[in-house]
Amino acid sequence: MPLRARTLLGPGPSNPYPEAAVALAQPLLGHLDPVFLGILDETSERLRTVFGTANRRTLPLSATGSAGMEASFVNTVGPGDVVVVAVNGLFGERMVDVASRCGAEVVRVDHEWGQPVDAARVLEAHPSPKLIAAVHAETSTGVRSDLEPLAAGKGDALLLADCVTSLGGIPVRLDEWGVDLAYSGSQKCLGVAPGLAPFTISDRAWERRIEKPRSWYLDLGMLGGYAGEAAGSGGRTYHHTAPTGMVVSLHAGLGRLLDEGLEAVHARHAEAGRLLHEGLQEMGLELFAADGHRLPELTTVRVPEGVDSAAVRKELLERYDLEIGGGVGAYAATVWRIGLMGPNAAPDKVALVLAALREVLGR
Amino acid sequence: MPLRARTLLGPGPSNPYPEAAVALAQPLLGHLDPVFLGILDETSERLRTVFGTANRRTLPLSATGSAGMEASFVNTVGPGDVVVVAVNGLFGERMVDVASRCGAEVVRVDHEWGQPVDAARVLEAHPSPKLIAAVHAETSTGVRSDLEPLAAGKGDALLLADCVTSLGGIPVRLDEWGVDLAYSGSQKCLGVAPGLAPFTISDRAWERRIEKPRSWYLDLGMLGGYAGEAAGSGGRTYHHTAPTGMVVSLHAGLGRLLDEGLEAVHARHAEAGRLLHEGLQEMGLELFAADGHRLPELTTVRVPEGVDSAAVRKELLERYDLEIGGGVGAYAATVWRIGLMGPNAAPDKVALVLAALREVLGR
Repeated sequence: MPLRARTLLGPGPSNPYPEAAVALAQPLLGHLDPVFLGILDETSERLRTVFGTANRRTLPLSATGSAGMEASFVNTVGPGDVVVVAVNGLFGERMVDVASRCGAEVVRVDHEWGQPVDAARVLEAHPSPKLIAAVHAETSTGVRSDLEPLAAGKGDALLLADCVTSLGGIPVRLDEWGVDLAYSGSQKCLGVAPGLAPFTISDRAWERRIEKPRSWYLDLGMLGGYAGEAAGSGGRTYHHTAPTGMVVSLHAGLGRLLDEGLEAVHARHAEAGRLLHEGLQEMGLELFAADGHRLPELTTVRVPEGVDSAAVRKELLERYDLEIGGGVGAYAATVWRIGLMGPNAAPDKVALVLAALREVLGR
Repeated sequence: MPLRARTLLGPGPSNPYPEAAVALAQPLLGHLDPVFLGILDETSERLRTVFGTANRRTLPLSATGSAGMEASFVNTVGPGDVVVVAVNGLFGERMVDVASRCGAEVVRVDHEWGQPVDAARVLEAHPSPKLIAAVHAETSTGVRSDLEPLAAGKGDALLLADCVTSLGGIPVRLDEWGVDLAYSGSQKCLGVAPGLAPFTISDRAWERRIEKPRSWYLDLGMLGGYAGEAAGSGGRTYHHTAPTGMVVSLHAGLGRLLDEGLEAVHARHAEAGRLLHEGLQEMGLELFAADGHRLPELTTVRVPEGVDSAAVRKELLERYDLEIGGGVGAYAATVWRIGLMGPNAAPDKVALVLAALREVLGR
C-alpha cells in the first residue's frame, strides 16, 4: 500500500520536528551503553529546561502521556488519602478514575467544559488534601487553566499538573509557580512521536511518596536508580529496558526546540494560534473555549448547525491528507479540535487548514 | 558526536530487522487514522501467528516488556488470590514482586539459577491457585523451561508465560500447549526497537479477569475497546494515544519474520546458537545454563577465573563496537550473556563475537 504523508492537525500526535524524525534512523543503542546513558542524562537536563524546574528527578517514562498521569498518582497517593481534582474536561475525569484506583478519597470539583479551572473553588473543596490535581491545557476542550493561583493556595498539599498539551507550546514554569509533580507526552508540542511521558517530581513530593507503589513498572524509586536521580553519579541499576530509539528521538526534538529558544517557540505557537482563531471566526465559525483561556496549540471550534462533523473530517483526511480531531464526550459530534503543535505551529499549516475547511464547508 | 553503529549481542535490545528500522522513517500517522487502524489490526493478526494462538485479545501494549508482565497480573489477580510463581532467575523474581503488589498471596517455587523449571514441584506447590506463572526463556540465565507439562497439569488454574526472550526465536505454541496469558517485548527476537509489549489473553482468562484493575493504563477492558478485541468490528473507543510509529515498525518487523517463515526463523536461531555454543566451548569456556535447556538466542557463559568481566565488555564495546551483557544478581561478575536475536541470529555475528572474544581473552 502506498504511504500517506498526513498533516497531523488533530489533538496529537503531531508531525514531529525533522530532527526528531531523523534521529529515529540512527543505529539503535543498548540501554546500558555509556553513549546512550549520556544522551539520557542530557535528555533529562533538556526536560528540566522546558519544564522550568531544577528537580533532579526529571526523566522520560517508557510509555505514553497517560502513564505519566498514572505514575503521578500511584507514587503519591494510597488508600484513604484525600485528592482534590479539578475537572473541566476529559483529562480531569481521567484523573478521578486513576486516583480512585489508587484507593484515594477523591473530591472532584466540576466545571463546565470549555471553562478554565476556578482556583478558589478547588482550594475550598477540602481543608487538608494530600494532593490537588489540575490539567494545565485541557486537550478535550482547548482551555488553559492558570496553575499559579492553585500553587499559591495549596498550603501543605502537593500540586500535580497535567502538562501533556502545554509543554513546549505555552510557558511552563513549575518551580516559579510551585508545582510539585508534572507529566507530559512526547507527541504534542514537543514534536516527537508518541511513546514517552516526560515526568518530573520535586524533592518535597518525593519525601512523601508511597515507598512501594502498586505499580512495579512505574515505581519511581526503582526508576530513579536507572535514570534521573542517578544522573552524573555513574551508578546505574537496571530496571527495565528503556526504549532507547525513542529517547534518542526525544533528545533530538528537545535539542531543536531549545536551539530555537523557548521564548521563540512559545511566540511561534501563540502567533499560529492567533491566526487560526481569527481565520475561523472570519469564516463565521464559533470558538468553543472560553475567551482569554484559549490555547494557541489546540483550538476547539463548534461544528456549524446541520454539518456532519465526521463527514467533514473524512473529506479532509481523504482529499487533503489532513487530520483534525473530533470532539470528546458530549461534544463528540459538535466540536472539532485543531492542533498546531511543534513544527505545525506555522503559518503554512494555518493557511492549509483554513483553506481546506473553507472549501469543504463551502464558505 | 559521531554516531556509533553497535552490534547488539547483549540480552536485548538487539539490532532491528532492516524492515523494522526503515519503517520508523515513514511519515507518522494518527492513532485514529483508518490507515493506522488497519496496520494495527494486521499487527495483532501477525502476533497471533507468532504466539501460536487464536486469542482475539492479542495486541501490542504501549510500553516495554515489563509492562506486559504487569498487565498480566494486574488484570487477573487481586488481594488474597493465590499465585504460584516458578522462580529460576531474575524475571521469576520480578513476577513475585509484581504479583505481591497486586495483593496476591504468592507461593514461590525456587530453583537454582541456570536450571529449568521443575513442573512437578510447581504443580504440587498449592492445590488450587488462581494463577501459575513461569518464564519460558529466562533472560537472566539463558534457560528454556518447557511450558507443556505446566499446562497439562494446571487444572482449573490459569497459566501465564513470560515469552519476552522466546517469541520469534524458539517455537511458541500457546494454544497447542494450553497457555492462557503471555507477553513479550519488541526488542528481542522480534527484531524491533524497544517500546512495545506484545500481549495475548485467552477467553478463559478474560472471563476471570479483574473488572476494574488497579492500573488504568493497562486496563485490558478499556484497551480492548481500542485494539485487539474490536479488530474488524469497526467500533473503536479512544483510550490513550498509541505509539503509532512503533506499531508500524513492529508490523514491518513481523512481516519480515513471517515472510521468512516461522520455521525457518527458528531454525536460523537454533543454528546460530549451536555455532556459538560450540565455538565458546572450543575456546575452553564453560556454558552456564543446564545442558539440554540452553536457549540458542541467549547464551550464558562463565567468565574465566581471573578475568575482569566488565573490562572485557568495555573493550568489546570500545574496540569492536560490540555489546554483550554482564550477568545478573549473584552472577553479575561471573557470567556473560550473549544474544543472537532477530537479524543477529546469523553466522557473521557468531564469527564476530567469537573472534573478538578470542582476541580480547588471548585464547
